[in-house]
Amino acid sequence: MSDERPKRAAGLSAGAGCPVPLSDYPHVLLAHGGGGKLTQRLIEQLLVPSFDNPALRELHDGAVLDIGGTKIAFSTDSFVVKPLFFPGGDIGSLAVHGTVNDLAMCGARPLALSAALILEEGLPMEDLRRIVASMRSAAAVCGVPIVTGDTKVVDRGKGDGVFVNVTGVGEVPAGITISPARAAPGDVVLVSGEIAVHGIAIMSVREGLRFETELVSDTAPLHGLVEALLSVAGDAVHVLRDPTRGGVASALNEIAVQAKVGIRLVEREIPVDEAVRGACEILGLDALYVANEGKLLALVAPEAADQALAALRGHPLGAKAARIGDVVAARPGKVTMRSRVGGERIVDLLTGEQLPRIC
Amino acid sequence: MSDERPKRAAGLSAGAGCPVPLSDYPHVLLAHGGGGKLTQRLIEQLLVPSFDNPALRELHDGAVLDIGGTKIAFSTDSFVVKPLFFPGGDIGSLAVHGTVNDLAMCGARPLALSAALILEEGLPMEDLRRIVASMRSAAAVCGVPIVTGDTKVVDRGKGDGVFVNVTGVGEVPAGITISPARAAPGDVVLVSGEIAVHGIAIMSVREGLRFETELVSDTAPLHGLVEALLSVAGDAVHVLRDPTRGGVASALNEIAVQAKVGIRLVEREIPVDEAVRGACEILGLDALYVANEGKLLALVAPEAADQALAALRGHPLGAKAARIGDVVAARPGKVTMRSRVGGERIVDLLTGEQLPRIC
Repeated sequence: MSDERPKRAAGLSAGAGCPVPLSDYPHVLLAHGGGGKLTQRLIEQLLVPSFDNPALRELHDGAVLDIGGTKIAFSTDSFVVKPLFFPGGDIGSLAVHGTVNDLAMCGARPLALSAALILEEGLPMEDLRRIVASMRSAAAVCGVPIVTGDTKVVDRGKGDGVFVNVTGVGEVPAGITISPARAAPGDVVLVSGEIAVHGIAIMSVREGLRFETELVSDTAPLHGLVEALLSVAGDAVHVLRDPTRGGVASALNEIAVQAKVGIRLVEREIPVDEAVRGACEILGLDALYVANEGKLLALVAPEAADQALAALRGHPLGAKAARIGDVVAARPGKVTMRSRVGGERIVDLLTGEQLPRIC
Repeated sequence: MSDERPKRAAGLSAGAGCPVPLSDYPHVLLAHGGGGKLTQRLIEQLLVPSFDNPALRELHDGAVLDIGGTKIAFSTDSFVVKPLFFPGGDIGSLAVHGTVNDLAMCGARPLALSAALILEEGLPMEDLRRIVASMRSAAAVCGVPIVTGDTKVVDRGKGDGVFVNVTGVGEVPAGITISPARAAPGDVVLVSGEIAVHGIAIMSVREGLRFETELVSDTAPLHGLVEALLSVAGDAVHVLRDPTRGGVASALNEIAVQAKVGIRLVEREIPVDEAVRGACEILGLDALYVANEGKLLALVAPEAADQALAALRGHPLGAKAARIGDVVAARPGKVTMRSRVGGERIVDLLTGEQLPRIC
């Protein structure tokens, strides 16, 4: 790995406010897919400038297009999770939920999905059947049809069982504009439940950890929860984000940078299940950076915050929703957190790879 | 490979009209991705029944949805071509063209694309730059923005450089209904130019063949050609198909089965470049089954056939368009061909894998 490090040391040449140029990495690293700083750089220094257009510059979970006067959300996600089957789900249901959630984070009602499979030669047909059945079942529960697809096969050793791409279109109701750029000082930060569950469920399987109660992924479709939230808080909902790869910390950092606001968290308000907290300690992980697949963050105007929180708590997927912080004008682009013992620290993006192939 | 064969011999248990059940294959084979019989079985016996819905049953290159009174085409394709760079293109331009073409084959004007990359750890960053630049350039030439995306990284040895998914949405003009089911006896079969060029260009690189003139992939976006065709032939255009994986033979077989019609080809009318014909002989390939990435098949009502052919020939991408056969009521589900020496033979789907990872 030694020749894969950047040619210059990050701290020397770049300084805190000046990221290491992408050109210093001659090869793609696993960390470029980890959801942290390197992923951000790959997106901001290579992909966004290349494909430059207004929809992409929004850096949202999906794009919103105007088609014949209807606002259509459009979002894509490829899934490479390892293992393919894990407590609480598999790559099939995860892929359906993931894209349904990306549409929901645009405020959209999902209308249709595509499914594209890249199979590795030698994959047991029975595994494929299970994954396809799981996709079907997840799509049926979501009430969204899978209307088109594609299947490719690559040689043995050139894939890893199955990779799944699910892309979706959805309709954004009139009067709803959800965008990271709308985060404004005074907004309240809500989370819909206990964090870090998916990442820890996957890591427990990989590491062969056993707990008294099995840790099960939180993978779930969130469009119903969003609908409940929007029905009471409407346009007061400024930003929605499902904190998947890179967790709550990375999602909030992205929003802080895009909206040029500060975000202040209060550690003791952030709901974390005891078993997950214990597993994080054993695995040396910070729950704030661990992936969720059935939770959302909502940044809501202060006057609607109580109603919004009540709406989340009134839905089965939001029963443990909590208010975890607020948006401020100070320290734009930064996320800070008041710790349990009272100090305040910066919650930065991670540079390295915390949890590869978590989704 | 011996344990990967079906448990029963196809010829014995299944007979000509009764395909080998998918359950006889315990593992996925490369041939399941080859565009022939095994691909068809995977789609028809596993995927379509699982995701059953009217749009998917159309078995079209994409789905057409009604969103707020607008007909929206929606299509997805993952690309796993090997090598990543080839004469005339690379995986990036191929992916953009491929999805633009799938939308065009629904009669749609492309509106927006998504791009999802699965990168293998260790991929040279310079290769990624070239591929992304190629996607940008191809999208710009097509006049279609890439509005949303996703990037994942898998461990070294678990991918193969880059896999690219491009999914697209497009608008189908009022009054246009393109569907394989509309193929009707009397329809004329047109092809927009010389066939088998893409597959042979790729195979020449893989096999290290050299010709007097380099064989260059025909990868190209076909939406302009489709627009030219529809502007003169309109609703008389019944079916459009870009004969990619599996070539002209596989595409026409699929249409014949779906529309329950026969298709009769005339071998001497099918345009094949001399160098391609020679390469096919050297490589032991039948040009009818070799992938195209810049050609289309159009099934057009007889009264509009001359105008349609003229419209194709009037466009730079259709200069060598030809009338290669017609649709008949006899032998529904079958494609036949009158050979140069006068005999007639059935042009069946291939069972095995002719050209793996051609797109």
